[in-house]
Order: sequence, then C-alpha cells, then structure tokens
Amino acid sequence: MTNDALWQRRKNALSPTYAHFYDEPLNVVKGDGVWLYDETGSKYLDCYNNVVSVGHCNPTVVKALCDQASTLNTHTRYIHENVVVLAEKLAAKFPEKLDTCIFVCTGTEANDLALQMARCVSGNKGVIVTDAAYHGNSTVIGAMDQRRKNFGQFDWLETFEPPNTYRGPHAGKDEGEMASLYASEVDKAIAKLAGKGISLAAAMLDLSFDSNGILIPPGDYANLVADKVRAAGGLVICDEVQAGYCRLGEYWWGFERYGVMPDIVTIGKPMGAGHPVAAIVTTREIARKFSEIDRYFNTFGGNPVSAAVAAAVIDEIDDRKLLENATDVGTYLQAGLEKLAGKYSFIGNIQGAGLFWGLDLVSDPVSKTPMSDRELRHITTLLKDEGVLMGYTGRYNNCLKIRPPLIFSKENADQALSAMDRVFRTLG
Amino acid sequence: MTNDALWQRRKNALSPTYAHFYDEPLNVVKGDGVWLYDETGSKYLDCYNNVVSVGHCNPTVVKALCDQASTLNTHTRYIHENVVVLAEKLAAKFPEKLDTCIFVCTGTEANDLALQMARCVSGNKGVIVTDAAYHGNSTVIGAMDQRRKNFGQFDWLETFEPPNTYRGPHAGKDEGEMASLYASEVDKAIAKLAGKGISLAAAMLDLSFDSNGILIPPGDYANLVADKVRAAGGLVICDEVQAGYCRLGEYWWGFERYGVMPDIVTIGKPMGAGHPVAAIVTTREIARKFSEIDRYFNTFGGNPVSAAVAAAVIDEIDDRKLLENATDVGTYLQAGLEKLAGKYSFIGNIQGAGLFWGLDLVSDPVSKTPMSDRELRHITTLLKDEGVLMGYTGRYNNCLKIRPPLIFSKENADQALSAMDRVFRTLG
Repeated sequence: MTNDALWQRRKNALSPTYAHFYDEPLNVVKGDGVWLYDETGSKYLDCYNNVVSVGHCNPTVVKALCDQASTLNTHTRYIHENVVVLAEKLAAKFPEKLDTCIFVCTGTEANDLALQMARCVSGNKGVIVTDAAYHGNSTVIGAMDQRRKNFGQFDWLETFEPPNTYRGPHAGKDEGEMASLYASEVDKAIAKLAGKGISLAAAMLDLSFDSNGILIPPGDYANLVADKVRAAGGLVICDEVQAGYCRLGEYWWGFERYGVMPDIVTIGKPMGAGHPVAAIVTTREIARKFSEIDRYFNTFGGNPVSAAVAAAVIDEIDDRKLLENATDVGTYLQAGLEKLAGKYSFIGNIQGAGLFWGLDLVSDPVSKTPMSDRELRHITTLLKDEGVLMGYTGRYNNCLKIRPPLIFSKENADQALSAMDRVFRTLG
Repeated sequence: MTNDALWQRRKNALSPTYAHFYDEPLNVVKGDGVWLYDETGSKYLDCYNNVVSVGHCNPTVVKALCDQASTLNTHTRYIHENVVVLAEKLAAKFPEKLDTCIFVCTGTEANDLALQMARCVSGNKGVIVTDAAYHGNSTVIGAMDQRRKNFGQFDWLETFEPPNTYRGPHAGKDEGEMASLYASEVDKAIAKLAGKGISLAAAMLDLSFDSNGILIPPGDYANLVADKVRAAGGLVICDEVQAGYCRLGEYWWGFERYGVMPDIVTIGKPMGAGHPVAAIVTTREIARKFSEIDRYFNTFGGNPVSAAVAAAVIDEIDDRKLLENATDVGTYLQAGLEKLAGKYSFIGNIQGAGLFWGLDLVSDPVSKTPMSDRELRHITTLLKDEGVLMGYTGRYNNCLKIRPPLIFSKENADQALSAMDRVFRTLG
C-alpha cells in the first residue's frame, strides 16, 4: 500500500485530533537499536525517541515481555513476585526515604494520582506549575497547560515563569541573582492562590523543563523553589517522566542533580521501553496517609507482564552502563553542538544535559526573536530527509529537540551533528 | 519463596493502598485458558477475570504481541498500518455513525477524555451517573464514585438511583412503570444541576450496571434516559468497559441490547487481553468539533504493539465464535443459577445476562437485608478453596459476581455451579 493510501485510510478511521511529524507523514515499519526504517527500507537515526531509551526492540526487554505474556498476565489483587521485584529494584535507585511504589499505565495517570495524594495529605487544593508546562492529558493534569483553552481556567491553578537563563525576565543576570529572582516568581504564584483563599497542595516540577525548551535552572533555584513550596504547606512532586531514567546523564533522576528531595516522584515513558507502564514513588508516610482516606486500584498497573518489562529495562540500563554512556556521549555531543553554535548565529542558545538538548533557534540573535513553528517544522523535515529524526519544543516551539535513546554512541553523535551541519548550511 | 515471605516483601515495597482478594492472598503464577495456577500447582477455574476474555495467555494474541514487539513499537506521530487496521476492525463492530477512534491506555483515560469531549461539544459542564457507579480513578472520573470521600463534592456532579428491579424505590412494580419511574430519577438529577445553574454535558452510563450488582434495567429504561439526557443538552456516553466485547451475550455492545445510540462509547479492559489498551469510538462530527478546540496525544495510545494485540483479540472473538459462546453458555449458566436459587433462599435475586451475572445475596429473603461485605469475602474464599474464583460487587457489596472469560464452556459452568452448590450447602 502506498503512503498516500495509508494516510487516507488513517484520516478516515482516526479522529482529526491525530497529528503527525514532518511536512509529509513518515511511515515507520521497523526499529532496531538507534535506527528506524520506513516502508522503502530507508533508515533514520533516531535522535528523538526517549521512550525506547534502551534501543528499539531491545532483545532482552522483548524476551522478558514475551516470556511473561506466555506464562501469566493478571493484576495486583492476587500476589505475584514480579511487581515486588520491580518495586524493590526501583526503590534501590531512589534515596532511602522514597521507598514506596504505586504502579499505573501512563505518566498522566501517575501525575493525576500524585495530585490526588498531595491534596489528600496537605488538605489543600492549590497547584503551581511553570507556564507552558506539559504534565499529561487528564482533565486536571491537561488543565495545567494553559495553552489548552478547552480546559478553561481553574481557581486552584497558577503558573510561574520558567527559569530560562537565555530569555525571559531575569535572563543574563549573575547566576545567584537569577536563581533568587526566578525562585521569587514562585512566591508570586503562591500569593495569587492565597489571594483567592486557596492554599498550596503541590508544585509539579519537571526539572528538565522539557516543554520550556529543556532548561538547566541557575544556581540553587530548584532547592529555593522546594523550600518555598514546603513553607506554603505544599508537597514537591517531581515529574521525572522526561528527566528521569538517566536522561540528563550523571544521575538516574533529575532531582538528584540539584540535591532536591521530592515528596512524590512520578516516572513513565522510558520505564517500559514503549510498553505502557508508569509509577509513583513516594515515602511510606505519604502513602500511609493517603491509604487512610482513599483507596486506589489500577486494572493494568503493576501486572506481571508490565512489571517484567520494567524490571528488564532497569537491568539493561545497569548491565550496559547506559547512565555512564549518557554522561560520556552527552559531553561529546555538547561539544559538537557548541561548535555548530559558533558557526551558525541562528543558534541562540544550547541548553540541556546528558542526552537531552534544546537548541533555541532565533531569526535574529540580538533581539532573540524565536524562529517560527513553521520554520522548525521545515528544519526537522530537512533533517529527516538527511536521515536524522529530531523534534522541537519550547514555549515558542522554536527549540530543536535532541533526545536520542541512551544507547546513542559517539559515532551516532557525529552522524547527527554532520546532518545538522548540512541542513543548517542551507539556511544561511 | 513462601507466600508469607512474598506477602511481607510486597507490604514493604508497595503502597498500603494495595488490597488483595480472599482472606489469605492468592499467589497466581501461571494462566492457561480458563485456568489459573498457584505456586503449589493447584488450579482454579477463573470465573472472575473478564480482561482475559479470550483466555489466559491466548497463543494467537501472545504471538501478535511478540511479533510486533520484536519489529517496532512507536507512536502515532508516525503513521503505521496497525492502528488503522484496528480502527477499521472496531468501526465494523459499531453502528455506521460511530466510525471514529481515539486510542488510549486505560478505561480511566477513555472516560476522562470522553468527558473532555462532551464538555467541549455541549459547552456545558454537568455530569450525571448512577449512585455507586465506578468509571475509573482520575481526579474527575474517580469523583463520580461518591463513596470515595477524598475527592470531595463537585458542583458539576449529580447521581441518580440505579434501575434495580429487585431492590430500590421502584422495585417490584410493573415493568413499564418501573422503566418510567426509574427514568424519572434522571430528571431529578438534571433538575438538581439546573438548581445550581449548571447545564448537562453528559450522562455516563454503564449499561451492565456492574458496580450496582449487574442489573438488567426494566423495559425501555435505557432509551427513556438517553432521550432525557439529550433533551437537557447532554451527550450520552456509554462506558462499555464492562458491558462491551460480547460480555452480555447476543450483542457485541451493551447499548445494542437496548437499541440506544450513544454519542461516545468508551471501551477497555478485555480489549487487549491484559495489555493496557483502551479507546473512544464516536461520531466524526463530535471528533471534528473537539479537534477544532483542543488537541490530544497519548504517548502509548494506539502504538503498533497495542494495536496488533487489540486487533488479534477482535479476530479471536470472531474466529472462535465467542459471542455465540457467551450467549449459549450464558443461557446454560443462567438455568443452573436459577436451580441454585430455588434451593437456597439466601439467593435473593439473579441478575445479568450472557457471561456476566450477579447473585444478590440476602441474610433474610423477606426484608431483603443484604449479606455483609465480610460474608461475601468469606463465601468467595470458600469458593476459592473449592478451586473456583469469583468476586463480589454492588452498592452493598453483597452481589456474588460471576464474569468468566468468554471461552467458558458448559462443562466449566457445571464445575462452577457444583462448587457453588457445595459452598452454599455449608451456609445453611
């Protein structure tokens, strides 16, 4: 079947809410390691898909999936060793206090449940998130992205300015000053809630600031924010769906990089290498308080198959030393990106860490005017035509997003950098 | 490892929100067809798990899962044939107007999105559900079960009396009168919303009334309700997570049994035989209106692996004629249950259809006093000890719940009925 025919059938069968990457839809039929293949056999270096952090069709993970699916798939109202083994493996990756797990199927479910728990434990209902944050798509979690007008305004939600050191109200100042000024934006959001008579239940923080263009906050920003949230009676929820699982290099989790101690951590995407599994990791005390007031059951959450897959992913990251790889190849990739930035003035800023980078692209480096959504779509389409898959993100949709599987090698980095160079050259 | 040791490890690693069936937790290690096996090799006839409607570890479904997981697992921002094939297969099972799909991972996600769509399309925010209904566990969907106090009261929610023909305010009257009286309970709920200045967005209806004890509503009740909902400006959302996929026999979907035309249908649990996949099926017009106001993307929803699994489940139901089996074995099971009811006066009522039955158990058949939660837990534990797995449900947790895989045979029905007879005999 031709792509056009498949595209037409898809338009007839799926809702018009479905979108696709690139100017023309890409028909991907096979995946292997860092490579994706289309229906003509053309191959693409995957510099976008963090979900398959251990590589497309990782044989160890696929074997764990198939072995367990052939043996038993049921739910947590019976007992089964797999979910216990997974919870123990996860707890071993967290600070000692974060020792209690609840399993769900998606990051949305994890964040929605985290909010239920935070409200229950704090007794408050207010929530603060960075402006243009994305934490999922349930009614309350989707509402946190105020760009989605359908959800309307909620009195319990306030947003604050993301800690962007390149653009934004406090950019370009001394690092300590930026940290304190951006943290004070959190005070304003809490004060706005208080002005409506609403106390703080939680701040939901993605410390990789993915949807803000992948930001590394200045100085002690993260801890200053955590302190303010706790002083206001709220819980610190770290949404590690993007930042976690070694993505930023050096540490398993984004919060470790900043020495922040979360009350609740939510994890997802790469956790099952594409299999729908996600979780909450929290303290025994918070889980106990929640259990005294409410119950929670998720039909598919923590089933033996999902648990086997998620355990295999953790083992694979450890056995193949993918944290070390993310750190090493990340440093190598960063150097290459900096070289490109020296060559092309429309690369306004390089932001990120490990194997997660955003290039803030500008039409004018002095005014820092963001390139348009259309331009980024064009650039990613050109990169795709060069055999390299990337995406874009950010408040203005102008940050080229580089987020390859953790098995990405220095050779892969060279392939990506050289394709970027070829494409950037054509942009003048 | 002993069960005690596993149980202790589970208590240490998982949140205290996790519960288990039966007086002592059952450690299930293997599944095959209608059978589950514990760690000692003892086997149990599964009369509870609807998720695995095509049988535990169905080889055709497992093969589809493993073949696709070894080839590619990605998301719908690329195009792929599997999700299109699945959407086409599903649409072929629905009335012509219900031709547009959106894929998600859980019934909760499907119901939450259905509500977002209904609010967007109707412009209203009010929702009505039956009292003690369960539609999922996100913040807004969990709130619909008013037994969960954590969620508090929401101004947009009103509940109405379920159409119970055995117990409840209008029970025992002439069928047509019951239909009209129970339907008028919906008027009251809509009027309560209106009294708060809130217009109706949707009624969310599980037409198997699972959490109310599996009810068959009287006469033209379902259509009377749908008419009232539409007259009030609301959409009819049929939650077919329980009633769908041939569960009630004769029809693929619960709404077909009553000739009701839903605006939005949500499906889940048996859709992926344990793999986390769920969906919304709606009209092109509703999907289009929603897409004009909002976007929706679900990382795992409709991925090639989930789609392959869900397509294999549909094929397996068709190829093995499981709809016909649910009808035939259901009728046979019903006759056996009626025989038991003639023998044991504590069986107050037999309610349900196909392979989904509730036995309303009473401590006194005249006053219809429900047996206690503790008694039902004891009965299901005795049945488990007899090698038969059942559950219980209902507003008073007193309805013994029989909901086996669709591959259940007449021989299996005899096995279940005879175990029930042995256990019931000991209860006097």
